Amino acid sequence: MPVFSLPGIEHQTIAHRSQGTEKVEVWKQSLAPGAATPPHFHECEEVIYVLAGRGEITAEGQAMPFQADCTLILPAGKVHQITNTGAETIRLAALLSESPARVFLPSGERLMLPWDD
Amino acid sequence: MPVFSLPGIEHQTIAHRSQGTEKVEVWKQSLAPGAATPPHFHECEEVIYVLAGRGEITAEGQAMPFQADCTLILPAGKVHQITNTGAETIRLAALLSESPARVFLPSGERLMLPWDD
Repeated sequence: MPVFSLPGIEHQTIAHRSQGTEKVEVWKQSLAPGAATPPHFHECEEVIYVLAGRGEITAEGQAMPFQADCTLILPAGKVHQITNTGAETIRLAALLSESPARVFLPSGERLMLPWDD
Repeated sequence: MPVFSLPGIEHQTIAHRSQGTEKVEVWKQSLAPGAATPPHFHECEEVIYVLAGRGEITAEGQAMPFQADCTLILPAGKVHQITNTGAETIRLAALLSESPARVFLPSGERLMLPWDD
């Protein structure tokens, strides 16, 4: 699957319904130092496994630091934002419990992304 | 969560129903050179993201090589075995679509594992 770039963010979908999954979807992403995702949520559950780097996740107003080898568990509908607060690129794998997995802004509006099918 | 060791295999459950997931489960595993899982299947879907090393996966009689950065998609019920055919330890994250995720032998008998709750 192709690699998509947004400012400071690279994204590759590495498991998707179109590749044979029936339920889950997996994203491989990197965030450059200083980069942040927008605040967003998914309609499905998400588990983020942090492979490299360090940063901060803010979920519904609460900020929490994380680093490589941490696992972040996000219930469906939980608004969250990930910021790279370190000097190294964050690399992560995000497991989503549904495919296709969509991204929504806190307002509920869908955020269309380059990798949406 | 604790790290469990079997001969040549280390396992850590890094996301599980007891940690707050509603659906998915994530395992972090390593396989030493020469080590292999037993042939087994799960009742749920599994996606394996290979972080390091190289090996071979045999699924229902067909063998396929893999290496770091590969993704292996295993439908529910598909018997598979992973063997480390390389000189480096395989490190992987296994993403399962149900929690708790169980392991079964090809006969259908459940394989009880040290990390089963």
